[in-house]
Amino acid sequence: MSFELTILGSSSALPTSKRFPTAHLLKVDERFFLIDCGEGTQIQLRKFGLNPSRIHHIFISHMHGDHVFGLFGLLSTMGMMGRKVAVNLYGPDRLKDMMKQHLAFFGALPFELNYRSPAPGNEGCFFEDEKLTVHAIRLKHRTETFGYLFREKKKLLNVRKEKIQAYSLGIADLVRVKQGKDFITGEGKVIPNSKLTFPAYRQRSYAYISDTAFDPKLAEQVRGVDLLFHEATFSAKDEKLASETMHSTASQAATIAKKAEVHKLLIGHFSSRYRDHSHLVEEARRVFDNTVGVNDGDVYSLPLERSSTE
Amino acid sequence: MSFELTILGSSSALPTSKRFPTAHLLKVDERFFLIDCGEGTQIQLRKFGLNPSRIHHIFISHMHGDHVFGLFGLLSTMGMMGRKVAVNLYGPDRLKDMMKQHLAFFGALPFELNYRSPAPGNEGCFFEDEKLTVHAIRLKHRTETFGYLFREKKKLLNVRKEKIQAYSLGIADLVRVKQGKDFITGEGKVIPNSKLTFPAYRQRSYAYISDTAFDPKLAEQVRGVDLLFHEATFSAKDEKLASETMHSTASQAATIAKKAEVHKLLIGHFSSRYRDHSHLVEEARRVFDNTVGVNDGDVYSLPLERSSTE
Repeated sequence: MSFELTILGSSSALPTSKRFPTAHLLKVDERFFLIDCGEGTQIQLRKFGLNPSRIHHIFISHMHGDHVFGLFGLLSTMGMMGRKVAVNLYGPDRLKDMMKQHLAFFGALPFELNYRSPAPGNEGCFFEDEKLTVHAIRLKHRTETFGYLFREKKKLLNVRKEKIQAYSLGIADLVRVKQGKDFITGEGKVIPNSKLTFPAYRQRSYAYISDTAFDPKLAEQVRGVDLLFHEATFSAKDEKLASETMHSTASQAATIAKKAEVHKLLIGHFSSRYRDHSHLVEEARRVFDNTVGVNDGDVYSLPLERSSTE
Repeated sequence: MSFELTILGSSSALPTSKRFPTAHLLKVDERFFLIDCGEGTQIQLRKFGLNPSRIHHIFISHMHGDHVFGLFGLLSTMGMMGRKVAVNLYGPDRLKDMMKQHLAFFGALPFELNYRSPAPGNEGCFFEDEKLTVHAIRLKHRTETFGYLFREKKKLLNVRKEKIQAYSLGIADLVRVKQGKDFITGEGKVIPNSKLTFPAYRQRSYAYISDTAFDPKLAEQVRGVDLLFHEATFSAKDEKLASETMHSTASQAATIAKKAEVHKLLIGHFSSRYRDHSHLVEEARRVFDNTVGVNDGDVYSLPLERSSTE
């Protein structure tokens, strides 16, 4: 029951000797979601012991090279490893165009690629399976760009083991109790649900926001998430440059985190002009204290916790 | 007066946690020649302290992803770093098609790309400047593939400093003496060239052979080189696989080195099926003793040496 984010690359457009271009891997219950795929993503996956074969869903924020140039090698490697199962690619419309053109030149893959793009003006819920939803969030950048919000679905209550025996609960009973219903014994006695269950586990959430100009409206869309990654390409002193290139400063990232009342803010996508990113973290912390500057290989794990309000 | 090869990537098609896909950088007198450009080449250049801006010539062996997928990021980075000077790309015809298609999608670079492909059946001297020639060598692989032989041009003799003064040699005299001519004094006395000069420095050479099926005819084309890189994707026990995929075994690479009487053999492009490549090196050494298995980051430097035969 993991919910674990690995930073595969944390540079902005120009990689450095220590930072690969952007890629994040989110593991939810051992399913792998790749978010962006900068050059060298397959190499980072290997370095951090993450098997590329386990990736079935790849979310791309936008069609700039530092977010997509790793797709060619990663997909080719999946093919050489004997993959037969389709890979699902999510992102702007042009993602499909790029891949079609690329494969026409280099030859088809031995597995299918499925494409899905957020509908303009109706990003909303973009992906859904039995455990998770992903919402696309439109960002303000120099090309069509999306952030992604990963959130676990509302979980069922956990039934107390000793009560299953005490009341001889059958499978049909368990389903109802997990949904919050009371149990009525053979003698007609009502056992309130609260006596039978623990609160459900909290719905864990991760929002990925890269690349974007400062946009205070984003706060509403990532409200209360456990983990917010927000790009922080520049320092506040370079705010003009941030605005011109449609990127954010560390202070601006922190402003979104504060306004959205998230639990923890991760910043990255640092410009290679800064040799050391500690001043960007300090700058963000003056606005939002629980801020971390990410490095390649960092792992952020959200524990399973019982919700106190359910 | 350097002649120095840095291995940027030494894996075969599937990179590993320790080996990037193929790329070599040859520095000749501080000029940088990039040979193949697998994914992550720009990251390796940074890691090994090699400034990508200094690359003006890129030689591509063939259009398989593990030899070219790094071009997109490297050229894009050069553009973002403000490059204005053209980059010269050498390789199969399809290299131009790939780049044109890529740039039509992602946008033009702020510098020119020049292309040159070896003429079929007339590979021969493919590049020449004041100090170096590069010959293309046709290889046997699943697509049009070239090896490259880098060789310094014949060097002028070095004039002994004390003789310049002793005979008051002028600039015109020096030019003649460096070319091997004797000097005739004002009194008509002939001073033999051997009294005036040291032997010239040797012409250093590096041959790059990847990817190819075993081809004994290659030995003639790389005869006597100082440094031969020859792919050794497979072990002799997998010779059938090597033959099917048009690759070479370590023994076959060594057979070429022995037949060609090269000074040193470098082997690499190891299949990821072998966790450890030491048995490939041992296998090659049984045929040709002066063999080294390359690793990413290795540097092979050829010293300036006076030729004993000149």
